[in-house]
Amino acid sequence: MARRRRGGGLDRLLLTLFLAAALLLAPAAAAEAEVEVELEVAVTAPAPAQDASEEAADAVAQQQEQHLLTSPLVIKLPSEASERGAGSDEWSYDELPPEVRCESWRLAAEANNLAPWGAVPAECAAHVRGYLTGAGYRSDLELVARESAAYARAAPLGGHGRDAWIFDVDETLLSNLPYYADHGYGLELFDHHEFDKWVEKGEAPAIPSSLKLYKEVRELGFKIFLLTGRTEGHQAVTVENLNKQGFHDWDKLILRAAADRKKTATTYKSEKRKEMETEGYRILGNSGDQWSDLLGSSMSARSFKLPNPMYYIP
Amino acid sequence: MARRRRGGGLDRLLLTLFLAAALLLAPAAAAEAEVEVELEVAVTAPAPAQDASEEAADAVAQQQEQHLLTSPLVIKLPSEASERGAGSDEWSYDELPPEVRCESWRLAAEANNLAPWGAVPAECAAHVRGYLTGAGYRSDLELVARESAAYARAAPLGGHGRDAWIFDVDETLLSNLPYYADHGYGLELFDHHEFDKWVEKGEAPAIPSSLKLYKEVRELGFKIFLLTGRTEGHQAVTVENLNKQGFHDWDKLILRAAADRKKTATTYKSEKRKEMETEGYRILGNSGDQWSDLLGSSMSARSFKLPNPMYYIP
Repeated sequence: MARRRRGGGLDRLLLTLFLAAALLLAPAAAAEAEVEVELEVAVTAPAPAQDASEEAADAVAQQQEQHLLTSPLVIKLPSEASERGAGSDEWSYDELPPEVRCESWRLAAEANNLAPWGAVPAECAAHVRGYLTGAGYRSDLELVARESAAYARAAPLGGHGRDAWIFDVDETLLSNLPYYADHGYGLELFDHHEFDKWVEKGEAPAIPSSLKLYKEVRELGFKIFLLTGRTEGHQAVTVENLNKQGFHDWDKLILRAAADRKKTATTYKSEKRKEMETEGYRILGNSGDQWSDLLGSSMSARSFKLPNPMYYIP
Repeated sequence: MARRRRGGGLDRLLLTLFLAAALLLAPAAAAEAEVEVELEVAVTAPAPAQDASEEAADAVAQQQEQHLLTSPLVIKLPSEASERGAGSDEWSYDELPPEVRCESWRLAAEANNLAPWGAVPAECAAHVRGYLTGAGYRSDLELVARESAAYARAAPLGGHGRDAWIFDVDETLLSNLPYYADHGYGLELFDHHEFDKWVEKGEAPAIPSSLKLYKEVRELGFKIFLLTGRTEGHQAVTVENLNKQGFHDWDKLILRAAADRKKTATTYKSEKRKEMETEGYRILGNSGDQWSDLLGSSMSARSFKLPNPMYYIP
């Protein structure tokens, strides 16, 4: 804990406690307190981006401090907040600390409110990294898997062997976190060439909660379709990678053919789901980390959105 | 700040720091450290529900402490987490502290992974209350409104007066937070009778970011449809409440007729959207706090999900 603190940590903590005390003890002097909050924000908010990499490093440092020290103390103070109420218009979004804005950014991404987005905002680099490498991502993945399994167990399987569950591959069954750890956890724009080199290693680890879900869904008697945006050229390495990580006995692995190259994932995956329906399958479950895995036409009876704040695929 | 601390706060903080230090300094002794984490969790996790109100009060107290003191210090520690990695299977979901699980619960609700759910889990009462009365909810609402406005400005309006934007009413334009503040912020099961009494007062405040969006969308030239689950019996009070809060000049307010009573919101709202399409409208935007406002058939070109961790409507 202590070794992660930076130089100004104690000063900032004291300043924050002072401001929090001022807000709590002088509710009648709200106007003055507001000025002080704005000063606090001015200290922590990064300047408009000029040198992206320096900005990012600054943002990382600032947010790390923010994250570990000040943000829970000042921002989430229930007494102060409830006095203002959700209806008040005293705060503006830009004045909120980056940590609060970045939580909103990540939630908005997961609820499909940001579409389309290109890269993680520079000010959210540390937030996203902390989320992915901490307990939050893991916890979110496990809860989605649990909800999926509960639904799968209760699903009315027809016994005709035509009930299907679709899994996406990247960030759904296999994790590319080792790759993204070397590429800013989504801060860098997606680089197809570099990513392909990583895919061709065949070393993406399984997401443990997804592996458990996969096995349970299979044992329940669902037909399993793996529907991935990876290209047919990566078929062999994808099969090898999946097998090595414990994924076996799927019914069909569908990869993007040359004719699908220019389609959005939403269109490509909707077309493939339509083909499954035409072949007589009933799609009861669909797991994916992108909304383009789940939305479109021939949608599954129930869809499960795995978290992914690193990239967006239309 | 200080006056919100409870008796055991300092002891718990010291225990937590000790455990964090043990985890950081003895990575090789992972097995022993794991046992200590389990002890820590055993101290904070509420026992299985017996007396719901006492349980809730306990959960509130425990989580408040957790929230203000320990959770950011231990749980989100990036160095420890990255050593384990997202691929490791050392943690199980049930062993995670309630605060982490409750953040996952709320995210899963927003991403439509929990459907259907009945009430906020007792262990998440304080988390949800803190979110709704703090900066998080407000920030999330403002970001969604910003994204909606950006989309509305860029939308290719036909100039034929047939481009439509749909708004839901409750928790989308108007806030029922004053009601839910008196009813556990979603911890209590929904009570139609009590809620109707609140609606009939006509005193629900506007959500400021939604009011701003509403005005902008109207000025851009969209036709505005208000599509609510409120019944036709509440038409007058709803109009009065909306006007009083600054919402004017919508094109149509659609309320649930007697024939719609037994339909799910998804079905009822899909049918109403279909009617709009039949009348020649092109639905470009749709704002709602429930997935049942947005999914189904005749879906909008783009949908915006406002946050709502208090209740779920199928």
